Amino acid sequence: RDKKVDSDYEETVKKAKEAWKVWADIPAPKRGEIVRQIGDALRQKIKVLGSLVSLEMGKIFVEGVGEVQEYVDVCDYAVGLSRMIGGPILPSERPGHALIEQWNPVGLVGVITAFNFPVAVYGWNSAIAMICGNACLWKGAPTTSLVSVAVTKIIAKVLEDNKLPGAICALVCGGADIGTAMARDERMDLLSFTGSTKVGKQVALTVQERFGRSLLELGGNNAIIADTLYGPLHTKEAVKMFLDAVEQAKQQGGSVVCGGKVINRPGNYVEPTIVTGLPHNAPIVHTETFAPILYVLKFKEEEEVFAWNNEVKQGLSSSIFTKDLGRIFRWLGPKGSDCGIVNVNIPTSGAEIGGAFGGEKHTGGGRESGSDSWKLYMRRSTCTINYSKDLPLAQGIKFQ
Amino acid sequence: RDKKVDSDYEETVKKAKEAWKVWADIPAPKRGEIVRQIGDALRQKIKVLGSLVSLEMGKIFVEGVGEVQEYVDVCDYAVGLSRMIGGPILPSERPGHALIEQWNPVGLVGVITAFNFPVAVYGWNSAIAMICGNACLWKGAPTTSLVSVAVTKIIAKVLEDNKLPGAICALVCGGADIGTAMARDERMDLLSFTGSTKVGKQVALTVQERFGRSLLELGGNNAIIADTLYGPLHTKEAVKMFLDAVEQAKQQGGSVVCGGKVINRPGNYVEPTIVTGLPHNAPIVHTETFAPILYVLKFKEEEEVFAWNNEVKQGLSSSIFTKDLGRIFRWLGPKGSDCGIVNVNIPTSGAEIGGAFGGEKHTGGGRESGSDSWKLYMRRSTCTINYSKDLPLAQGIKFQ
Amino acid sequence: RDKKVDSDYEETVKKAKEAWKVWADIPAPKRGEIVRQIGDALRQKIKVLGSLVSLEMGKIFVEGVGEVQEYVDVCDYAVGLSRMIGGPILPSERPGHALIEQWNPVGLVGVITAFNFPVAVYGWNSAIAMICGNACLWKGAPTTSLVSVAVTKIIAKVLEDNKLPGAICALVCGGADIGTAMARDERMDLLSFTGSTKVGKQVALTVQERFGRSLLELGGNNAIIADTLYGPLHTKEAVKMFLDAVEQAKQQGGSVVCGGKVINRPGNYVEPTIVTGLPHNAPIVHTETFAPILYVLKFKEEEEVFAWNNEVKQGLSSSIFTKDLGRIFRWLGPKGSDCGIVNVNIPTSGAEIGGAFGGEKHTGGGRESGSDSWKLYMRRSTCTINYSKDLPLAQGIKFQ
Amino acid sequence: RDKKVDSDYEETVKKAKEAWKVWADIPAPKRGEIVRQIGDALRQKIKVLGSLVSLEMGKIFVEGVGEVQEYVDVCDYAVGLSRMIGGPILPSERPGHALIEQWNPVGLVGVITAFNFPVAVYGWNSAIAMICGNACLWKGAPTTSLVSVAVTKIIAKVLEDNKLPGAICALVCGGADIGTAMARDERMDLLSFTGSTKVGKQVALTVQERFGRSLLELGGNNAIIADTLYGPLHTKEAVKMFLDAVEQAKQQGGSVVCGGKVINRPGNYVEPTIVTGLPHNAPIVHTETFAPILYVLKFKEEEEVFAWNNEVKQGLSSSIFTKDLGRIFRWLGPKGSDCGIVNVNIPTSGAEIGGAFGGEKHTGGGRESGSDSWKLYMRRSTCTINYSKDLPLAQGIKFQ
Repeated sequence: RDKKVDSDYEETVKKAKEAWKVWADIPAPKRGEIVRQIGDALRQKIKVLGSLVSLEMGKIFVEGVGEVQEYVDVCDYAVGLSRMIGGPILPSERPGHALIEQWNPVGLVGVITAFNFPVAVYGWNSAIAMICGNACLWKGAPTTSLVSVAVTKIIAKVLEDNKLPGAICALVCGGADIGTAMARDERMDLLSFTGSTKVGKQVALTVQERFGRSLLELGGNNAIIADTLYGPLHTKEAVKMFLDAVEQAKQQGGSVVCGGKVINRPGNYVEPTIVTGLPHNAPIVHTETFAPILYVLKFKEEEEVFAWNNEVKQGLSSSIFTKDLGRIFRWLGPKGSDCGIVNVNIPTSGAEIGGAFGGEKHTGGGRESGSDSWKLYMRRSTCTINYSKDLPLAQGIKFQ
Repeated sequence: RDKKVDSDYEETVKKAKEAWKVWADIPAPKRGEIVRQIGDALRQKIKVLGSLVSLEMGKIFVEGVGEVQEYVDVCDYAVGLSRMIGGPILPSERPGHALIEQWNPVGLVGVITAFNFPVAVYGWNSAIAMICGNACLWKGAPTTSLVSVAVTKIIAKVLEDNKLPGAICALVCGGADIGTAMARDERMDLLSFTGSTKVGKQVALTVQERFGRSLLELGGNNAIIADTLYGPLHTKEAVKMFLDAVEQAKQQGGSVVCGGKVINRPGNYVEPTIVTGLPHNAPIVHTETFAPILYVLKFKEEEEVFAWNNEVKQGLSSSIFTKDLGRIFRWLGPKGSDCGIVNVNIPTSGAEIGGAFGGEKHTGGGRESGSDSWKLYMRRSTCTINYSKDLPLAQGIKFQ
Repeated sequence: RDKKVDSDYEETVKKAKEAWKVWADIPAPKRGEIVRQIGDALRQKIKVLGSLVSLEMGKIFVEGVGEVQEYVDVCDYAVGLSRMIGGPILPSERPGHALIEQWNPVGLVGVITAFNFPVAVYGWNSAIAMICGNACLWKGAPTTSLVSVAVTKIIAKVLEDNKLPGAICALVCGGADIGTAMARDERMDLLSFTGSTKVGKQVALTVQERFGRSLLELGGNNAIIADTLYGPLHTKEAVKMFLDAVEQAKQQGGSVVCGGKVINRPGNYVEPTIVTGLPHNAPIVHTETFAPILYVLKFKEEEEVFAWNNEVKQGLSSSIFTKDLGRIFRWLGPKGSDCGIVNVNIPTSGAEIGGAFGGEKHTGGGRESGSDSWKLYMRRSTCTINYSKDLPLAQGIKFQ
Repeated sequence: RDKKVDSDYEETVKKAKEAWKVWADIPAPKRGEIVRQIGDALRQKIKVLGSLVSLEMGKIFVEGVGEVQEYVDVCDYAVGLSRMIGGPILPSERPGHALIEQWNPVGLVGVITAFNFPVAVYGWNSAIAMICGNACLWKGAPTTSLVSVAVTKIIAKVLEDNKLPGAICALVCGGADIGTAMARDERMDLLSFTGSTKVGKQVALTVQERFGRSLLELGGNNAIIADTLYGPLHTKEAVKMFLDAVEQAKQQGGSVVCGGKVINRPGNYVEPTIVTGLPHNAPIVHTETFAPILYVLKFKEEEEVFAWNNEVKQGLSSSIFTKDLGRIFRWLGPKGSDCGIVNVNIPTSGAEIGGAFGGEKHTGGGRESGSDSWKLYMRRSTCTINYSKDLPLAQGIKFQ
């Protein structure tokens, strides 16, 4: 282990923890106003940030801008949310008692993001985490560090213009060693991790070992890469994996009815590909490919194809195309799709920030962005207050 | 491993899984009606069940009845809930699209309970799990198996009177081997575990290893045993642990100002005990004692004593006694108590079924009974339906 | 005005107001337990009450029982609700302040019901109103007074068995004079009225005149009478109105393709009737008939028929029969049906107690039973508490 | 009646209704984005608008700016809300059926505002109404018409820059005649009225007569004028009313312990005034004064002073100053303050946009801005969809 890396990490975490003490005392609607300003600052720099994403990660420019737009949108969403988060006052069964469900920030939220969404995923996490009253410590992918630095600087300027410490949104750069340190660190009150199922499992186990909180967006996350159909793949290695997948699909009984080849031009371009004729349990069907390959299967019974859908280990998203009213509702029902995102008549991509985003099973079970996902960034206390006239006189605290 | 035990377990799980297929198709309000009947059947047998709890576990009769009453109450609560569970319809940002948050049962809920609450904890879990559309598989403590059998028979009769399979609420008897099998079993769609922090951690890691769901009520759970002040301890061993704790408290600087001795009568009775003069970080203060010992500490600054409260690893419940309005709100706030149950002017016991019950940190983070705890027994899908006129013609399903 | 009637009314209202003071202090979950017992007491007498409804009002026995069952069901629903009602704690924009949305009972709820639902409507109102902490004053239809008396006695027994005043659910018998008195009476903190649009309007204006609260279920309410297809009409007069409606339909261009005649047997039986060929704006189509007549209209454009649906003054319920996904969602959308109950592929009857029941426009706008209808029986305060250390010393109250 | 005024009104309403058809089809989150742009446009012109308010209405500049800031804030709030509004999917008691609570815009919202809050009240109404999918027709006070025109132009520019009709937010200028026309007009799907109790009652009765919807903020609304302590009164007439009130207070037994006089400088300045010694039922205590006069009363019993608070006909806001925990909760409880805004340790002013704003009794019962007030700008349908396989074949619509 590099001592400089270790001491940098230590110092960053300490500063973020100190910054939290200030941030937690800012009323939530005021925190919302800061997040609005962050959204506005990103909006003003959206083109240059979009270009940076495109350059560094390999998405086309429009999609780079689209990612920043998602961050901007979730900031605007979080502003309203900052006046709404809170639990109910519940009726107590005892006279002279109040029963209150209180929500408080967890403290410091570690956010580890992956190369394929170098901006939006941090945006979903940090905008919501911030209005909830948390400080953030971000570790982006080592291959997209410029984007992380640029975004963090924009946020820090807004915070400092408001006379708040920039360390409320801190950044650490590094690889697996820093990720492991964060997973082990008791001071990460929540660790939000986006990445592969394999690494994600290790992160989850390490955090569980210390009874910490984790929020996982794994594996299937990349399903959305159906969107980058016309962008290049990220690396030469990804092109090799694409060709391997096509080859395996053929060996397992599939026919390539469209695409299947590398495109002969600079950059890592491959053809969008459709494979038919595979059995539902062909290994390749159950493997993530990180590439634009669609496997088309035939089925006889609805129950059969719903079961095929659910036997895949990933659980991010699945789509049905039908006008049959009954089938649609059964698809949404207890014996239908077991994914976190369930679509009808649209592709598996295309989540909106207003709905909770995330997947089940090997996709990790986490949820980000809309609906009640803010609860994952807070801790709940069920509080009973005895306010009756015959209060005991002694004062003190009891803990167990 | 005993083959007979293994094959019994296998058969029980299979039957419960089959029973689920029937139960999931029953509309939720009809499931609520069944749960109401279960509550009524328990109400009719409340005295005999209370006696059984008292005999087998060692609580006084009144508390045995109290436990059954909690089960009855949560059944009544669940009846109303069965007409309310469901997510919102959210506004979609796309014309001709509907955005729906759909909640479905997870499937089979394993419930492992501990000796000290042999009825109520299963009640909290099963009543809510059932109206959500889940089947249950219960493993009670080996030392309270008669109570488990009696309760399961009462439930089965209600189910069968309604022409439903009794296996919707199945029971397995056994020890750690069965518990481990449940933790490993992919068919336990959720595993609710109540018990020690040590075993609970192992359960959580095993379930996480297979990307399953767990709900933990650990350690601090026993804090509530402050209530059984006048009942005997569970075993001779518990008496020894009480005496050890008193001895350690003395060695670490404490003075026993009241109690501290075993009571000379048949049964495992000990004196309620108050210890003063210990430093806040004395090891014994941070150790669960499963016995009626109260440590009284002095403090100067509010921040100081809030910090002492939070440095304890358990996070179930804590109480403050004060009439100071500001102190109360700060106690409930981001820098106040970090427990799941936070009380003001009442002892740490006394949770109500309308509020979510459970604790943070080494207490496991799970929540049972009221508020939105039903969400833990369900899985959420964010669904987008494209209903615009220009729907694609092809029908099919896409999964990733 | 009859002096005896006046003084009886005065005394009843006074007793109910006094009873409220006791009831408002009972914790909501305890009120829920009382309502559960009321539901149980009705369940035990369901057959005899169903017979009484059938005898007095003219429904068939099964429907009489069905009405009592609705009361029983809403009691069970209200039990769970009694642990849930309450507003959120909202984030305040000021440090050291808490923002709380507090809900309190309105006080005394007057409930005026109509002949056609002599039990269920009172059940929907009183069960929810009771758990919210209100006392009730019921005026049933003069033609169904035995049912009102029987139900009130059953409730009173439960209350008194629990050592509570029976006047928490008080009854006044009488006609329009008592109804008018209730509308004018400042002590009716909410007046829930079910009846004709004409009388309902007068009630609403009288209550508005004193800035009171009203909840109206008018006119269209009787649409559900499509259900009593095989029961007799209520009176000879209703038979005459049926024959008149059929005659008018013919004169306005309609053809009777089925039914249209009185059935020659004792009791007021008429044939279920279908009329075709009427223009959408034929006066009879817009008139309530209180009888089993269905007008079938042809349309070319979806927009056209949606508009016809909405040009009717009543706004209780409307149904569409289609499998067209887009049409269904447009039917539910901003330019679709403007009714309170909107059905797809089922008739206009068949509301469930879990959803808010009521209609728009000349149906009055009120909502009863499920969802958040409990809010109509409560008043809301937005409360700000300053708990900061630098509180002012002076104590007092300021009102404006 | 002036024909030109009539035809202008007609044309404006028609255009707003046409504009609604476009606006209702814009997805809610896109409407939110437009409202965000409106907020931003107001933010850029906040100083000039604040000056205009100050000039035209008589508030000090800071308060003029403060009003515009409230409009800006509620726009930001509404952006987040635009992705959240929607009802729940409820569990149906019938297999193969879905129960959905659908919320739709009411259509055209008339907004009549008063002189004292010439900007903020329109902001609260229009920002929420707009994201709900409504068009607005605003009639400001005749004495503050420049502010109305300026704000409407700013909104229209944003709408038109987004290629939307400016008439989505239409403006009519005029006095009582236009107000009456709006109250009578069936095309005002909701009429939000802020003004005196006397006029408000007439508006409510007129709207009720046609079974329309109204939202009233009356009388007590002016309680907040405690805020304008250092600004001048609106007119010479208001100064006279102030002097009259002081005189009456003296005649009814009060002593002026501070203030009570007109300040000798240009503008309508008066001294902040405190009166003691009045009995709780002195007529002047129950009269709105639109001026900075505080009546200080003594009390013996808590119940007594709570009752005094509630015997006032206005029900907007009331404050208590105390550190007594029990008294605070009783003040918030069923027998405490019956106002819509209930404060503890802060004055009666100072509502936040996150909480519902409005008052009870003669204050009208309406609620604006935060919490679930959006529901007042929408209509609810409880929808049941039968999606079972055995659907009927015939297609059609049934309405009643």
